[in-house]
Amino acid sequence: MAETLFTGIAQLVTPAPGPQRGAAMRELARLENAALLVRDGVIAWVGAEKDAPKVSQTHDLGGVAVVPGLIDPHTHAIWAGDRLADFEARLAGVPYEEILARGGGIRSTMRATAAASVGELVHLARPRLEALLRSGATTAEVKSGYGLDFGAEVRMLEAVRELEATFPGTLAPTLLIHVPPTEGREEYVRGVCEELIPAVTARGLATAVDVFCEREAFTVEETRAILMAARARGLGVKLHADQFHALGGVELACELGALSVDHLEASGEGQVAALAASNTVATVLPGVTLHLGLPAAPARRLVDAGACVAVGTDLNPGSSPLFSAALALALAVRLCGLTPAEALTAGTVNAAAALGLRDRGALVPGARADFLALHSADWRDLVYTLGENPVRDVVVGGQHIKETTL
Amino acid sequence: MAETLFTGIAQLVTPAPGPQRGAAMRELARLENAALLVRDGVIAWVGAEKDAPKVSQTHDLGGVAVVPGLIDPHTHAIWAGDRLADFEARLAGVPYEEILARGGGIRSTMRATAAASVGELVHLARPRLEALLRSGATTAEVKSGYGLDFGAEVRMLEAVRELEATFPGTLAPTLLIHVPPTEGREEYVRGVCEELIPAVTARGLATAVDVFCEREAFTVEETRAILMAARARGLGVKLHADQFHALGGVELACELGALSVDHLEASGEGQVAALAASNTVATVLPGVTLHLGLPAAPARRLVDAGACVAVGTDLNPGSSPLFSAALALALAVRLCGLTPAEALTAGTVNAAAALGLRDRGALVPGARADFLALHSADWRDLVYTLGENPVRDVVVGGQHIKETTL
Ligand SMILES: [Zn+2]
Ligand SMILES: [Zn+2]
Repeated sequence: MAETLFTGIAQLVTPAPGPQRGAAMRELARLENAALLVRDGVIAWVGAEKDAPKVSQTHDLGGVAVVPGLIDPHTHAIWAGDRLADFEARLAGVPYEEILARGGGIRSTMRATAAASVGELVHLARPRLEALLRSGATTAEVKSGYGLDFGAEVRMLEAVRELEATFPGTLAPTLLIHVPPTEGREEYVRGVCEELIPAVTARGLATAVDVFCEREAFTVEETRAILMAARARGLGVKLHADQFHALGGVELACELGALSVDHLEASGEGQVAALAASNTVATVLPGVTLHLGLPAAPARRLVDAGACVAVGTDLNPGSSPLFSAALALALAVRLCGLTPAEALTAGTVNAAAALGLRDRGALVPGARADFLALHSADWRDLVYTLGENPVRDVVVGGQHIKETTL
Repeated sequence: MAETLFTGIAQLVTPAPGPQRGAAMRELARLENAALLVRDGVIAWVGAEKDAPKVSQTHDLGGVAVVPGLIDPHTHAIWAGDRLADFEARLAGVPYEEILARGGGIRSTMRATAAASVGELVHLARPRLEALLRSGATTAEVKSGYGLDFGAEVRMLEAVRELEATFPGTLAPTLLIHVPPTEGREEYVRGVCEELIPAVTARGLATAVDVFCEREAFTVEETRAILMAARARGLGVKLHADQFHALGGVELACELGALSVDHLEASGEGQVAALAASNTVATVLPGVTLHLGLPAAPARRLVDAGACVAVGTDLNPGSSPLFSAALALALAVRLCGLTPAEALTAGTVNAAAALGLRDRGALVPGARADFLALHSADWRDLVYTLGENPVRDVVVGGQHIKETTL
């Protein structure tokens, strides 16, 4: 039985176990001069340091703030190639159609990713996941979705499995059905339902299936067919919806009891109300708002309506090269109108719920001992600080991860 | 004679010596497989690695991109106290007047700063400047301006002098006349001109004087009086102008031949045209845009009109807690419409000009050997990457600064 008492916690701040919705997202528990006992990777006790149980091993954190490990519920961390030429062209005013005509855009990422071996994908993705971990993400979702064919989709998920073997935190693999083929859509959707999902399920390569429901991607009916097939195999379901157009993806997500529906920049009052009445997590992605200069998702209105809101990085080369879960929260505060407390809840227990995880995100007995020691004694520096990593130490399952080992 | 040849430069990218204005801001020199010879802290030679002179000491950078050290031309890096409660209140919807009535706002920073000793100010500011250095700022301006009285202003500048003794890069100290007294404005302005500026000049504590020209701060005529006194003592002059209202501060800056005029969020076509016709640098501060959610300065229009644009962090606790010069450039690209190349010019030679410095910012023979080795082999990652420091090594005057010594 491995026991460690973490002391020297100026401030221990946590949401209650979640998910939390609406005004409850602002209700953080805050304990001054706290201590935290970890036993076998799980939190065994939290309280005032003066009341702490006596144990043989202690770890003094030196008087800083401690918050739960962050959970990044939406990343596309596996890709090959780069989009720097696209980035430069877009900023010089070149239209996206022209960038596509030059061979850029998402299809260039798909070509490069499909051409890479699993080993190459692992090699490219590892430093990205390490950056997320340094920024506080002790759990990160990783999607497939850049495969040109089923083989490439499976290789992306195999890369996630290989990364899991060395990543100190938790990776949650999601099969993303992202870009329809230029011809043979019907066969493609049937193949996803009848071949790809069963094959992925049989090998345990994904815990959820996500579909990009949008005018240029999959229709609501195609999305429904794919997600029904996923649900029938016992997988969680998620959607990219309302990024540009509110087509009905949010309503479908609520109807199917999806774990989350992500993006929501184009959601209006009807979608906000539907989410508030559902148990589906509304995941917002402020990195896209900053990177592309597009409107932000209505996170403020979602919280006010009583929805359960989460925040993700959407780490990807085209629309969100955002390598920090902490900065995602800082951007959610500036660009989406969340308060600091709401952002912390969005990035911990609510993000966990978006992945179907109930064992983490709050610092309470019985939860996984994933937590962060900040540089500051005031937890609000986590979302206040811009341009510098506010996270000093990352603790995963009670194990202190030294920066130098990353 | 100390000579080092830096090799293993996949890409050496630099603007021409500056300042550069308008379309010339986009014209970077780019050399592949380059080397750079440093002699006694100054660049002695730049060229293709295969043509490099033979020297006894070489330093292999391992195949990454090299750019000039960044120059942060606008910081308020010295302050005591914090503004976290203000930040939280503002995000919860509390009006600024109410925050002021609670004892918050800039006057709380002024009280805490005026109450701090020089040693305390140094202790608080050092990690902030180290963060800027890690982010690539080999030169940083530091302003006074939180003093309640002249003594406190002088202590802030004494703190900059003390910081200079250990900071590996260059600090440029500016006397900022920031907040008018609640009574006795006329005597105050006279005191600034007849006592404070002469005293600061006599001790060599500042190289420039800056005035906050705004409705709630100093009028154009007060600003003129102060800047004329500064100019008469041989100091450079700068303005904070057009942050909320275009009162005539930009026109005054151009008339006086100011080094720079900073903020410009409220500048219209007349101010853009005046700047384009002047030698005054237009410094934009996108951290404020992100942090406060206010409109961005018209950097795109300024460049298109032919002005010389620089970018700064405006690092300060109230309106821009931005600790990264690289992220300031990344934000200028997203929020102000600069291209990556324009942003690099804005953060190097143009920022140097905003401080009256002509010996740095471009990687050419005769310039100071201040440069950065990035993590990436493509220099565009400097402004593309969000949430992770794109800078691997910082070299100041030819000396390689190890991160661990910071
Ligand atoms: Zn996505
Ligand atoms: Zn300022």
